[in-house]
Amino acid sequence: MNIPSRYLEDAVEQLSSLPSIGKRTALRLVLNLLQRSDEEVEQFSKVFLDLKQHLKSCSKCGNISDTEICHICNNPARNQHLVCVVEDIRDVMAIESTGTYSGLYHVLGGIISPMDGIGPNDLFIQPLIERAQQGELEEIILALSPTMEGDTTNFYLYKKLANCGVTISALSRGIAIGSELQYADELTLSRSIQQRTPFTL
Amino acid sequence: MNIPSRYLEDAVEQLSSLPSIGKRTALRLVLNLLQRSDEEVEQFSKVFLDLKQHLKSCSKCGNISDTEICHICNNPARNQHLVCVVEDIRDVMAIESTGTYSGLYHVLGGIISPMDGIGPNDLFIQPLIERAQQGELEEIILALSPTMEGDTTNFYLYKKLANCGVTISALSRGIAIGSELQYADELTLSRSIQQRTPFTL
Repeated sequence: MNIPSRYLEDAVEQLSSLPSIGKRTALRLVLNLLQRSDEEVEQFSKVFLDLKQHLKSCSKCGNISDTEICHICNNPARNQHLVCVVEDIRDVMAIESTGTYSGLYHVLGGIISPMDGIGPNDLFIQPLIERAQQGELEEIILALSPTMEGDTTNFYLYKKLANCGVTISALSRGIAIGSELQYADELTLSRSIQQRTPFTL
Repeated sequence: MNIPSRYLEDAVEQLSSLPSIGKRTALRLVLNLLQRSDEEVEQFSKVFLDLKQHLKSCSKCGNISDTEICHICNNPARNQHLVCVVEDIRDVMAIESTGTYSGLYHVLGGIISPMDGIGPNDLFIQPLIERAQQGELEEIILALSPTMEGDTTNFYLYKKLANCGVTISALSRGIAIGSELQYADELTLSRSIQQRTPFTL
């Protein structure tokens, strides 16, 4: 692309550094920004600085927070002895939006992925082990994505947590609600037969 | 979405105000930004301010430029008597990338679209008429998209420019190179038969 301005080129460059945004899309977005008022662009620019400066990570669970301890860890109405281990904060939001979970979370900030050079030491794992060793937890639910890397991470965590006297559970795997049986993959289908549950009305 | 931080929510809000970026995508982009260093985020934030503060519109042709007169209008090697009228700067880039046009441009900054409340007075049209009236132009090529709005704008410009003694031409319409005849729409196909050209090798 032959962009006729250095400033425009810089803006396109920065926006297209975001995942899934190509140069053409970035140009379209920047042209949209150009149509806005000075104040609006200033506001647009400012939120990213504010975000980086003020956003904290909850020192207890690794969730994103505006305060030292996040509002979930701080909520006395929640079960403080139940922890759900997830990959990132989007998983927290997904589980929170179900409205059925009342325990705490532990956000790893990623999963073990040797292919991407991410090992256990790059993740927020040690504080979870310390929480478990301090005896304040009764159950840890491993809620990582059912992929190779997720299973590897589950296995690593299981090994580390096995001697802490904590019940370790995992999300049930099976046929998704609303999906058609004939399109389910073989692994999922065979798992759902093995782990069949009593039929209830 | 239940976003646990005001700063995060603001950033998601701003990014999702861009066209074709939803809340979920915006969240993914913001989480990517969060993984970057302070300097990188500062740089990201700064380009949009710079853009708004420094980017100019060429006072002659309406093209985007870092200088008062853009590098195309300023280029003495280009044909100063030939002007191609386009909707926005992406069209300039598209035509420039063909490398076959050596005249100047005139960027309207949009097209007449009563449905969106955009009339002739909202566009960069008057300077084009003045350029034509001053007698410095020999030919004006109308290169707007072949849509209802594009045709309306073409018609409006034709009416305004008809008495200026300038040749007015339009992009040829027909079957796109590389496309299959059977999939061409009827209007395009019938137009390409009416406006058939002598066969050359």
